[in-house]
This record gives sequence, structure tokens and C-alpha cells, in this order.
Amino acid sequence: MSLALALGRRGLGRTWPNPSVGCVIVRDGRIVGRGVTAPGGRPHAEPQALAQAGKAARGATAYVSLEPCAHHGQTPPCADALVAAGITRVVAPLTDGDPRVNGAGFARLRGAGVEVVTGLCTDQAAEDHAGFFLRVGQGRPMVTLKLAQTLDGRIATATGESQWITGPEARAQVHLMRATHDAVLVGGGTARADDPSLNVRGLGAMPQPVRLVASRKLDLPTDSVLARTARDIPVWLLHGPDAPGDRREAWRVLGAELVDCGLKGRHIDMGEALRALGDRGLTRVFCEGGGDLAASLLSAGLVDRLVVFSAGMALGAEGRPALGALGVEALADAPRFNLREQRRVGADVMQVWTAPA
Amino acid sequence: MSLALALGRRGLGRTWPNPSVGCVIVRDGRIVGRGVTAPGGRPHAEPQALAQAGKAARGATAYVSLEPCAHHGQTPPCADALVAAGITRVVAPLTDGDPRVNGAGFARLRGAGVEVVTGLCTDQAAEDHAGFFLRVGQGRPMVTLKLAQTLDGRIATATGESQWITGPEARAQVHLMRATHDAVLVGGGTARADDPSLNVRGLGAMPQPVRLVASRKLDLPTDSVLARTARDIPVWLLHGPDAPGDRREAWRVLGAELVDCGLKGRHIDMGEALRALGDRGLTRVFCEGGGDLAASLLSAGLVDRLVVFSAGMALGAEGRPALGALGVEALADAPRFNLREQRRVGADVMQVWTAPA
Repeated sequence: MSLALALGRRGLGRTWPNPSVGCVIVRDGRIVGRGVTAPGGRPHAEPQALAQAGKAARGATAYVSLEPCAHHGQTPPCADALVAAGITRVVAPLTDGDPRVNGAGFARLRGAGVEVVTGLCTDQAAEDHAGFFLRVGQGRPMVTLKLAQTLDGRIATATGESQWITGPEARAQVHLMRATHDAVLVGGGTARADDPSLNVRGLGAMPQPVRLVASRKLDLPTDSVLARTARDIPVWLLHGPDAPGDRREAWRVLGAELVDCGLKGRHIDMGEALRALGDRGLTRVFCEGGGDLAASLLSAGLVDRLVVFSAGMALGAEGRPALGALGVEALADAPRFNLREQRRVGADVMQVWTAPA
Repeated sequence: MSLALALGRRGLGRTWPNPSVGCVIVRDGRIVGRGVTAPGGRPHAEPQALAQAGKAARGATAYVSLEPCAHHGQTPPCADALVAAGITRVVAPLTDGDPRVNGAGFARLRGAGVEVVTGLCTDQAAEDHAGFFLRVGQGRPMVTLKLAQTLDGRIATATGESQWITGPEARAQVHLMRATHDAVLVGGGTARADDPSLNVRGLGAMPQPVRLVASRKLDLPTDSVLARTARDIPVWLLHGPDAPGDRREAWRVLGAELVDCGLKGRHIDMGEALRALGDRGLTRVFCEGGGDLAASLLSAGLVDRLVVFSAGMALGAEGRPALGALGVEALADAPRFNLREQRRVGADVMQVWTAPA
């Protein structure tokens, strides 16, 4: 089961709108087939593992990191494929939250006389599939918010100097994290200040995450790296209803996709924006700031995982804060997180916090 | 040697102005005596260990966490005592930085035919004795700065609500840290806002650290906990030249000791203040804020160790920052620290950073 989950995690960031599933087929104590959801979401893990196993699948056990599908989508149901191949036992941690599956896969297997075992490694599976479950359950992707800050929570000097606060190891870790998300999101201020490429570097050839910029008025330079590369790696722009038509048109011509969003106060309504991204299939979004966008997401309770890199440096009260105004008046109203992991990354510290369930 | 060092660490915070030294006497592979500098700094570790060993000290090896003293202070030289007891080998990590010793102890031992071995566990010994070495070398105590903050570097809401950001385990850890320092220091703002007792609680009966408050104008309430308990546990007040005479008198009557300091800009010159504390014998000071005092110490390069407790909570830009203004304009000028340790403490994370050597 652990191997099936580990295989599934390899595909994170590459299989949206589908979950990334791992499948391991074991016959007489020997692994006879393995599969992981292919980039783009098809083929699923099970048929690939069954193809590897061939006749050895007869009488074998299939370990699958998520309930096999039962519906005819663009591929035939995996539950049927497992039955047809002669699998006699299926072990899976939990039910697929997709309303089109939701127990029907297990029912189909049991109906065909296959033994179904569930309940193993459910915590790990729930974490691995969190983005997919959020999309099918609440219609929005999972959001990981990254803050790379000084030990006193600053991301730049008062004059805006920010490169580099964290070290090369932390930055490499960020590229690894980008790679396991479907999309990377920044606010317009960060896009203007840093002219970022927002791609995954240093990890070899691989599918790149969608680049998202939230900019109410689309006041983004059209000679930026993002603009120049919008035809190579997708750029989607989240903008408000008051974004001028000429800017919309300019970006459309450059190859960007425009996502029209409503406002909440003076900012883009990030709840609505994320639902629009969920509609387009995104399951995992990695937000890298800036402070105002991070604060919008936190205030709205939309941050599922918070990754904090702290450098051994202090900038004091004049430094630019990692988080904009949250409007929190009492400690009891502050957004809270549980510590999931903390470790040294090069000269810096990384903390991973998760939103309470 | 490790045991001698561990014994020595037990006395940290209780032996000022002396170093806390551990001594273990080993004869034929058996420990025959142990000693640690007694509270107040006398008797030293060596005579206590020798007394335990008695005749067994003859021909034995003494492991001492610091070079034995060679001068007649309020106790006879320990080097002589070791020779007189018949110790034939002394193992110590490093030379005592005190100009009155500084190799003379080892020379005295060697002159009497005792084998002297140095160079073991020097890093640990240098860390354990850092406060004492700073005092004898630079005339000031070591400073540990503690910040207990949200994950975005805030210590209170905009309205000042600060209890509690970190959890009970982190607070217990703070009491443990207070206990290993000679004095606990806060700024006047913190003293006014929190009315703290600044004592060590929850660790049984023990010598209490001196309570220090830095308040330029001594505008501290004389009905505070500190005022009421100034006769039980020492309170020393660092104040500026412009502190009104009646306030000085009021605190003197309450039993506080006044430390007259010069100014640097609008604030107390903390370099001068720390030298005054070094003159009075302090070797280890634990500063718990507030933000302005912490910033003063950091800007002046006077923070030797920085302990950051981060809670899984965000307060955003309106929250009160852990550090006041540092006047840092370029990243290259920011105070920097090396990560020494990081671990979970209850629901919070603790990071220990040390100033580069």
C-alpha cells in the first residue's frame, strides 16, 4: 500500500483534473505490475499495472491508492478492468470522493466477487488526494501558501530588496514544491516587482505547472517574462470586472487565458477565483505571495497548507511583511495551523503547517 | 569529559560572576569524585570533587570543564589543590579566558609534574562558558534574545492582546531558559504592559535570576509585581541620565538597584548598559523583549543567541512586530545568524540561532 501511495505521489501536479493514483499488483508475494496515472490524467494507474502484469494478474491482489473508478469517462471503468483481468483482492485506503465514483467502484468489485479491503494508510491517502477531494467536494483546488521570510517575518527591505533572503537549498525545495502542484500563483505586485518566470527549474524536462497571476486591473507589463513565454507554458490571469478591455485583449493576443472574477472589497474574491480554477480542473495551487494575496487567502480561510521558510536574518519593523493586513482584532480570531513538519533546509528552516480539519 | 561538561552546565545561571565548572575524578576507570561550582561561584568544582575522592585522588585523572584557576582569589588556587591531592593527569577542553588564569593553571600543573591534556570537546566548552568568556574578554555578559511570535513574526494584535500566542510547553521551556541565565531583561514597555514577575516558575526551589528592566525615564509603576517583590528577588533598573530624581528615589526605597546608563540616540546605549552589568558580575542575560529593546540589541550586534518560538497562528501586518525598527536598508546589512537547533515544542516550533563567530 505504501508503494502504491508513493507511486501515486510521483504524479502530483501532472494529472489534473484527475487524481494521481498509484497501483501495485502482487501475486504470491511478488510484484508483477505497477502503474501511476499518466501525465494529463490518462491512462489511469490500474490498466497500466494490469498490462505489466499480463496473465500474472489472475488471482493477484491489486493495491490501489484510491478507489478504482466505476464510470465510463474517457476511459472504461478501472473496476471492470480489474475484474476482467482476474484480480481477486483489491486493497485501497479510502473511497473516491468524486460523486461519480463514491463507493460505486468498490460495490462493482464486490459484486463481481472480488474481496475489497479498505482503511489502510487513510491519513496519507487523504493528504495525497487532498487537492482532488477539495475540487470534487468544494469545487476549489487545495492551496499551499509559501512564505520565504526572515526570522522576523519580513520578505524584503523597506526599499524592496528581496533577493535573496533564503538560500539556494530552500529555493531548490520551492522548485520541487512547484513541481507537485498543478499551478503556481502570485499577486500582481509580485509579478511587477520580480518579473518571475514561475516555472520549475533544475528538475529536468517535465510538465510545467500553469502560471497564475491575480491582478484586479491587469496592470501587468506585457514585455515581461510571463508575457513572452505565455505560448510555451500556460499563463492564466485572474482579474476583476473592472480590468480594462485593451489590457484583456493584449493578454489574449499574447496567449494568456483570462479568468473574470468578482470582487470582495477592493480585492479579487479569492473564493470565487479558486472555484473558477476548480471548474477549469485545477486541484493543487501553490501560492508564492505577495503579502496582500497571501493575506486575502488566509482571511478567507482558503489556505490548506502553509510552508514557511525562515532565514537566519532579521530586517525589523521597517521590512516588508510576509503577510498583508488580516483584519484580526482578537487572538481568538487569528487563522490557526497545526505543525506538520519542521526541518533544516540548507542554512534555513522549513516549517509545514496544515489547516485544522 | 562529557560528564564534567554536563555537571558544569547544571550550574549555569547560579555561579556568576564565576564560570560554572564541572569536575570528575577517575581512578582506575572508576569515578571517585564529582563536583560543580556551587551557587554563588564558591566553592569551585575541583575542591568538592577532591573532597569526595579523598585518598582515591592519589594517582587519579581529573576531568575539568575549564582550566583550573591558578590565582589566590577568595579561594586558594585549584591547580595547587589538584597537585596536593596527588592528581597525576588533568584533562580540560580549553584555557580559561580570565586574564588572571589564561594558561597559568595548566603551567602550574605541568610545573608540578602533572600531565595536562587539552583540546577535547572544545566547542561544547566554548558554548557553555560563552557568557563567562565574554565578560572577562569584552566586559559584557552573553545575551540570549527570546522571541515568542506568530508564524509571521507578530507578538500581539494591534490592540495589544498577546496572551497566549505560544503554548504551555513553550512557556515551560522559557522558564527553563530563564533558570540557566544570571538575569532576565525586558524593556519598560513590556514591564508596563504585562506587569511580569520575570521569575522562574515550575522548577522547584532554586536561586532566581536578577530581574532587569531597561527604562530610560524609569516610568514604571511602583505598584507592580516587580516593585512589590524587589526585596525578595533582585530588581536592577537600567535608566538614562534623564530619569527623574523622584523616580530613582522611589525605586531605591523599594529595594531596586539603579544602573545609570548613557544614551545612544533616543534609547539607552545597550552596549554601555551591558558593560555596566558585566562590571556587576553578570555573565548570562536572557532578554524577552519587547520589540524596541530587541531591535536595539540586534542593531548594536549584541545578540549572541536568538531563540525563536513560532506558533501556528498568523496576525498579519497590523499585528505588533516582534522586532522594532532596525534601520536596515540593504539585505547585506541585516543582522545574520546561524541555525543551531530547531525542534517542535508542544504545538509550536523552537529555533535557536547563534551569531556568527
